[in-house]
Amino acid sequence: MSRRSFSEVPGGGALTQDRWARLAWSHVVEPETVSARQWISEHGASEALERLLRGDLATDGRYDQRIASLDVTQARRALERLHVRIVVPDDDEWPGGLDQLDDPPICLYVKGSADLGVLDGSIAVVGSRAATAYGLHVAADLGEGLVGRGVTVVSGAAFGIDAAAHRGALAGGGPTVAVLARGLDRAYPQAHEGLLRAVQEQGAVVSELPLGWAPYRQRFIARNRIIAAMGVGTVVVEAGLRSGSLNTARVARGLNRHVAAVPGPVTSVQSAGCHQLLRETDATLVTDTAEVLDLMGRLGVDAVGRVRAPETADSGLDPVARTVWSAVPVRDGADLGRMQLLTALDSATLLGVLGQLAVQGLVQRDGDRWRKVPTVKTRRAGG
Amino acid sequence: MSRRSFSEVPGGGALTQDRWARLAWSHVVEPETVSARQWISEHGASEALERLLRGDLATDGRYDQRIASLDVTQARRALERLHVRIVVPDDDEWPGGLDQLDDPPICLYVKGSADLGVLDGSIAVVGSRAATAYGLHVAADLGEGLVGRGVTVVSGAAFGIDAAAHRGALAGGGPTVAVLARGLDRAYPQAHEGLLRAVQEQGAVVSELPLGWAPYRQRFIARNRIIAAMGVGTVVVEAGLRSGSLNTARVARGLNRHVAAVPGPVTSVQSAGCHQLLRETDATLVTDTAEVLDLMGRLGVDAVGRVRAPETADSGLDPVARTVWSAVPVRDGADLGRMQLLTALDSATLLGVLGQLAVQGLVQRDGDRWRKVPTVKTRRAGG
Repeated sequence: MSRRSFSEVPGGGALTQDRWARLAWSHVVEPETVSARQWISEHGASEALERLLRGDLATDGRYDQRIASLDVTQARRALERLHVRIVVPDDDEWPGGLDQLDDPPICLYVKGSADLGVLDGSIAVVGSRAATAYGLHVAADLGEGLVGRGVTVVSGAAFGIDAAAHRGALAGGGPTVAVLARGLDRAYPQAHEGLLRAVQEQGAVVSELPLGWAPYRQRFIARNRIIAAMGVGTVVVEAGLRSGSLNTARVARGLNRHVAAVPGPVTSVQSAGCHQLLRETDATLVTDTAEVLDLMGRLGVDAVGRVRAPETADSGLDPVARTVWSAVPVRDGADLGRMQLLTALDSATLLGVLGQLAVQGLVQRDGDRWRKVPTVKTRRAGG
Repeated sequence: MSRRSFSEVPGGGALTQDRWARLAWSHVVEPETVSARQWISEHGASEALERLLRGDLATDGRYDQRIASLDVTQARRALERLHVRIVVPDDDEWPGGLDQLDDPPICLYVKGSADLGVLDGSIAVVGSRAATAYGLHVAADLGEGLVGRGVTVVSGAAFGIDAAAHRGALAGGGPTVAVLARGLDRAYPQAHEGLLRAVQEQGAVVSELPLGWAPYRQRFIARNRIIAAMGVGTVVVEAGLRSGSLNTARVARGLNRHVAAVPGPVTSVQSAGCHQLLRETDATLVTDTAEVLDLMGRLGVDAVGRVRAPETADSGLDPVARTVWSAVPVRDGADLGRMQLLTALDSATLLGVLGQLAVQGLVQRDGDRWRKVPTVKTRRAGG
């Protein structure tokens, strides 16, 4: 026997307000229930909820149980007690990126010092639970590097890559945001209670699920869409072929967010998912923070130059000078006739170039023989 | 005081023939001397050479020294003594891919059992000298995997990736072709004398440079264009940012050949060049033989499905045992001396490991030769 009106719900007087109507909706429907989102966007959360209670929506009674146990008073008290706030689309701190989802969260439960405005321009760093030492190292580096450039790091607080990304971000001074697949009354995973406390202090922990709700497989998958939608892009650091982070990357791609993947040894199964992303989608290969920002960063501010190899002795030489320089023996030297044989240059050109090289300190003349100046660090030919 | 006609060159009577005229040209000009190629293609090698001797070509006298020291008789004797043959564009075994170069070799010096026809559909596997254990492992795997699928492996016989690719190919029963940046009278590098002998036996060693010519930087760079042009594509396994193998990849791309790169840890400078290729060019990321063949192989024959979790004969082996196992030829077997060449292990270790592998039913001994047990399915599904 379901409630038929707001007055039958404990604390139901608040349900005329969008915020508390959304709280109620979040207790009633699962994430990714597209029809509920449609009703809410059509009628507004409060009026849609009234219609739901009246039985005017085609639900086949599937929500009756949850409607019967709705208790707004108790829910609001629990929020206060646990210092969790509700953030709704009308709030300034609502992450606008979520609205591009077909099935945006109805509201967000948020715990932490940071306003969700920190999510503007944020980047998700995700990956496998069963990460390798290599992956953990890279994720922590990226986490720290990104916050060092003023970018909030979003992840899922799971074991492995997620935790390493959060830890790196915390080491860099934050902010970082963790999106959980359970209610915020409990740490998940339990072992990350301390980590999540630190994330709250330097950022925020977020969920679309009411307090008390447990994590199931579908809720993890639903959670990934929030991670993918919150920021400007997603970086997958390590992922096995079945990793949930590939799902996050897929959603990000569907939302026209940037997707990047870090390569790893081809002998590592934990990089196989990244390599698959790089081979089979338009994901971009990234090797460090600068390359992530080059792809996803604020235009003009973060764009970086090409990776450059270090200068070598012959870097500045024109092709002819380089030919001559590379032909000059290091040890025994060669006379002009031999240098001509080696280079096939006419003697005037050859002498001119050798003179230039001598002035630049690259070759020296001993009697009638030319040799490379031994103190110059020469690069291995062709190396 | 240069020679003015064929009759003034020792053995010059042969210079009316294209083959020996090309031999002479190769003694006169450096690789990548475009003007010489133009003269030859305009007049034919023999007539162009006559004009060169007569002074009718605009050379500024730069070849006078080399013309003065031309000795066809001596050159032909040296070829016979060293069992080196000259291959010219009119020969059936001339690798047609070379003709797509702006500056194809004038002729090729070839030593080895294989007809260069083995280069049809061949694939170059190249990379850094200063390779890591990871890179060496991957290169050897690719070398063996490719020859196992009937593809000739081309490389440059240098330390590091090149040698590992050749060794893998030899372990798989060949064929493999090494392209050197010096004359074939000497092994280069010297330490690879044994390796090059094995390559000759199961393939060929090739150079465009006359016997006696030494390797310089420019000649290495020129050599790379031959590696790039000979086959259908180039795989870079490991490359620092200055690796010559990136130059090979660039030439291959310019020739519309396939270019692939193997990713590695982003923390390894030896993979930085591969990652740059993958980020900044249309090079394809590959992780194993199947993916290389998927990209470059014969359509329909080699196309493979998606990556699957592997189950291989060598899954349970430690690294040393795996090295030995992968070095044991499938067909003809190898005696202990040869196995030592392929594995670079001392004979006691080698014998111990071979004994273990025999107990596990992975290899068998016939007389003094070891071979893989043929009933074992050795290659990964789809690989």
